[in-house]
Order: sequence, then structure tokens, then C-alpha cells
Amino acid sequence: MSKVTVLGAGSWGTALSIVLANNGHEVILWSALQPEIEMLQTHREQIDKLPGTKLPDNIEITGDLPYACENPDLIVFAVASPYVRSTAKLAAPFIKESQMVVNVAKGIEETTLMTLSEIIEEELNNADVAVLSGPSHAEEVSKGIPTTCVVGAHTKETACFIQNIFMNERFRVYTSPDIVGIELGSSLKNVIALAAGVADGLGYGDNTKAALITRGIAEMSRLGIAMGGRMETFAGLSGVGDLIVTCTSKHSRNRGAGYLMGKGYTMKEAMDEVKQVVEGVYSAKAALGLAKKYDVSMPIVEQINKVLFEDKSAKEAVTDLLLRDKRREYSDLEWEK
Amino acid sequence: MSKVTVLGAGSWGTALSIVLANNGHEVILWSALQPEIEMLQTHREQIDKLPGTKLPDNIEITGDLPYACENPDLIVFAVASPYVRSTAKLAAPFIKESQMVVNVAKGIEETTLMTLSEIIEEELNNADVAVLSGPSHAEEVSKGIPTTCVVGAHTKETACFIQNIFMNERFRVYTSPDIVGIELGSSLKNVIALAAGVADGLGYGDNTKAALITRGIAEMSRLGIAMGGRMETFAGLSGVGDLIVTCTSKHSRNRGAGYLMGKGYTMKEAMDEVKQVVEGVYSAKAALGLAKKYDVSMPIVEQINKVLFEDKSAKEAVTDLLLRDKRREYSDLEWEK
Repeated sequence: MSKVTVLGAGSWGTALSIVLANNGHEVILWSALQPEIEMLQTHREQIDKLPGTKLPDNIEITGDLPYACENPDLIVFAVASPYVRSTAKLAAPFIKESQMVVNVAKGIEETTLMTLSEIIEEELNNADVAVLSGPSHAEEVSKGIPTTCVVGAHTKETACFIQNIFMNERFRVYTSPDIVGIELGSSLKNVIALAAGVADGLGYGDNTKAALITRGIAEMSRLGIAMGGRMETFAGLSGVGDLIVTCTSKHSRNRGAGYLMGKGYTMKEAMDEVKQVVEGVYSAKAALGLAKKYDVSMPIVEQINKVLFEDKSAKEAVTDLLLRDKRREYSDLEWEK
Repeated sequence: MSKVTVLGAGSWGTALSIVLANNGHEVILWSALQPEIEMLQTHREQIDKLPGTKLPDNIEITGDLPYACENPDLIVFAVASPYVRSTAKLAAPFIKESQMVVNVAKGIEETTLMTLSEIIEEELNNADVAVLSGPSHAEEVSKGIPTTCVVGAHTKETACFIQNIFMNERFRVYTSPDIVGIELGSSLKNVIALAAGVADGLGYGDNTKAALITRGIAEMSRLGIAMGGRMETFAGLSGVGDLIVTCTSKHSRNRGAGYLMGKGYTMKEAMDEVKQVVEGVYSAKAALGLAKKYDVSMPIVEQINKVLFEDKSAKEAVTDLLLRDKRREYSDLEWEK
């Protein structure tokens, strides 16, 4: 059994702590928020975000960052994307050389266009940073509903170590060397979910939504491959798998905000109505930045940005997507003759 | 404008005839069934399968196969998969050298393990056979809901010709050289939809279903690549796109039959309840045959076959899928070190 520290006690950090504790590991679950710490210590339950599931006894709750970072076998970074850099900076002095870290949050830093694992690598010198992602509603994971994820790491040893720590009958973990592909897929999916929501809001059918999702995967992979990722990853759990869950779930905030925009709400009105952070809105900007930087065509990302930030009507954006030039599905496949 | 003959006046053949007629082509829609011909001629509507949509005037209905095959620019094969070989055999004497044909039906012949375009090529000597597939409920297409498909052909010229004939603002067509990839995706998706239905019937959540769909894509592409298809195709419209529509739609017969089996019905009881041909049941057998022939691991296909034909319980099958050995997500990606 191993010592694992989870930084961040939101729904995903808490759900993963439960998986790890049930696997028999000693878990320290750290939160920066005093009310959250008290709630978890008093009720042994994440009442706000995972109501109904008690924490196993082998999860220790703490707000003491130096203590939490003191020599665990693995640190799980589960803080929301805007707090990844600041948390890494705070933790850095207490983290040992070559500490193994796995990031489970999703996003791209808007100002630097860096992925979250790149940020952690920059802030934690010499840490061995991996990522974990896949189609995984936290609520279902906390209830033991069968779920699969993929862990991406620089070395096979690290990937297999993390796989062993998380894996059980109901939480199945695959390994992959494609860190950047996994991170891009999980960030960009929120942008495509916005577009899928727009199509739903406009009253279009399954065909239109499936087209947007599929063309979305093509865009994501074009960018991902330009950045060194692999096609297979975008067709995998952290790409299309996660995208399916996000685009078809009624619980997705990104899809929900898109739906309202399809119904005629402005971006601001939709965000007010959804009442929570809509990551896709930020990722849309970052994705456009990356598309420019790597000179990759991303028509859905472009149109969503126009709807979000240039008051273009959602209906016009979908029409423009469908009226583009005739294209080959993937331009690098060779014809027989 | 072109002369186009559509063989088969079911929902898909009729919907495509409407698209073609609205694009201004002269369309001949052929059916083998006298009552269907009379219904279409009398009511100018496919009352059974596409109620509510009138046929444009430039669609001619006929039961005369020699007449229908007399020198059109394009023949669309839209007969149900079990009738593809017999229809091609009947039509062969009337079809000119190098006739351009596009198959839009889905399936694999159980006895020969041939795809439908291979069957048409075998029966129609020297025909230039292409395929068209994608996430496309016929009902939505007939109503002009935005839809995307991909056409696969041996040459770019044929692909572009067919693209031009079908394409309009609301029916967007991409081109591809990967015929076998397109055909396999559209056939095998029904097997995965059965499995997704089983997971739904067992009461599992979005995570489990997304996992099955994603691992299904991995299986489909492993087989497809062994047969000469391309990864990109399985990540595309005729692969994951069509799979999403089939696995998440309440209208899918395949998903529906799987759902009932997840609830404890036997295969026979489920087929009786669904009351229509469940293609996935036949494709499951053919897929297992192909997996053996090409020596490819297809665990979902194997388990579905056990549930269908060996009375294995659905729950046990899902458990066995989740308990397999620890794996890499795609085994041919290289580690950094």
C-alpha cells in the first residue's frame, strides 16, 4: 500500500480519494478552503459536491500544505485549473526532488497557452508529472459505477505505478505515453460541448450534433498532432470518450451554457443562468490562440469564439460551419490512383 | 444535373432520393415490393417509414429494374443488407461497363465475411463502387436537418463526383479513399450499440457507456487497420460519428435490444420485443469471424457473442470486460524513454 496526497477536495479530488482509500492506500486530502475542511472533518462527506457518499476512515483531511506534501509516494493535483499554478508555487518548497505527481484537472492557461502538467513541471522543479483523464463523472466514480481512465506519463514505469495505485474492479486504468494528447483532448472537449449545446438549443437533431462532435474530434486531433500528440489518443478515452460524456450529458455545464446560447441568450446571460464556471468559454480562447500559434484550421473553435466574444448569432455560426468548402475528411489519406 | 437511380425505397433510400431531387437531379426510385411501389405512386410519400414528407415531383417511382438501370450517371444501392447480393445479381445484366455505384447500406455477409461494396463489385463486373456513410437518421435527413456524411471511393474523381451530386447546404459530404474503413465502421457500430444498450439496461452510468463506446472504437479500428483501413476513418463521421448517434439514440433498434438484454431478456425475447431486424446480432457473428481471420483482439465483440449465443449473463460479460488484464490504451505508441 502507498501514501497518496490529494490536493483539492472538490468533487473530483474527493471521488478519487475515495477510490484510493478503498484500494487500501493511506490518503491525505488537502483543501485550501477552511469551511470545506471543517465540513469534510465534521461530516466525513463532501456535502456540497458529492452528497450521499461517506469518506472511508483512511482518508485524513488537512489544510496543512507542508504536512500534506511531506514525502508521499504520489501527489494527485485535483485543484480547479485557475488555481493550479498558484497551488504548485505554494507547494514547491515542501516537495521532494523527483516527486511523482499526477494532474487530474483540465484546462489550458490563457495567457501562456500552457497545459496544466506543463505548468506543474515549471513550478515544481524535477517533479515527474503525469496526467489522468477519461470519461468520468465524479458522482458516478464515488458510487463505484464502472469507469475507465487513461494515465499518461513520461515513462512506462511511472504510468504503471499510477495505474496500479488507482486500478480496481470498477475503476479501470489504461496507460499511454501521450501526455499532451490526453491534456488537449480533455481541455478542448469543453469547447466542442459548447458547440453541441448550441446545436441542441437551436433545435437541430442527432445528425447535426454527431457531426459537430465528430468534426470536433478532427479539429482537436489536428491541433494535438501539430503539438506532438497522437491520433489514437483523440480517438481514445480522454478524447472521444470524455467528449461523448460531456456532449450528451444533461449535467454538463458547458453543454448547458451552449444550449442557452442556441436559444438566443448572450454568453453573459447563459453564464449567469448556469451559475458556475463554464470552462469551455476560457478554453475556447486558449484553443484559438493555439490554433493560430500552430497554424491549424479549427473552424468550430473559430465560430464558437465569434458567438462568445463577437456577438455572432449561434444560428449563423452553425450555417457557416455547414457551408464551408467541400473537403476531404482527413486530408493526409492517399487515394488508390 | 444528373440522372440518378436509387435501388431500394426504404427510409434511407427514400430520404436520399429526396435530397437528390431537391438538388435538381432526375431521380428514379426503384423498389422490389409491389405494395411499396403503389403506396409511393399513390401518395407520393413513404407512409410506413418516413411519414409526413412528400416526394418532390422529379422522383419517378418504378418496379422495372432494367429500366431503372438503363444508363444513369449514378446508381445508389439502398437495399437492406440481406438483399444486396440478390439485387446486384438481378441488376447485373442491365448495368453498363464501369457504371458508377454508391452503396449506402450497412453490413457484413456472414458466410463470406465480405463487405457490401465487395459483394457489389463481385456481382457487377467492372462497376466503380463507392460507399456513403455517416451519422444520419433518415427521418432527420428527409426533414432537411443539417447532416454530414463521408463518401469513400477508389479514385478522387469518383468521390468528388458523388460529393457534388449529394452536397447541399444541409447535407454536407466529405470525401475519403478509405472504403473498407468506412464500411467496417458502419457495420461494427451496431455491435457496440448492443453492448452500450446492455450497459444502460444494467443501470450503469454515463462513464460505463462512454468506456464501452470508446473501447469499441479501439476494437473496430484494430480490426479495420488489420484489414487495410485507416485510424482516421474510425475517428471520423462513419466511425465514431455514426456510433454516437446509434449508441445514444432512443430510436436505435440495436441499442434497444441490448437494453432489454441488460434487463434480463434473452436474445430471442429481445428480438421479439423490438419486432424488427437487429443488424448488430448478425454483425456480431461476422465481426467475431473477422477477428479470428485477422487475429485481432476484440473483447467487446467476444463478450457480446457470448451473451447472444451462449447464454452468458449480461452482467457477467460487463464484469469480465472490466476485469481484463491491465493494458496500454493503444499498444503501438512509443514511450519517451
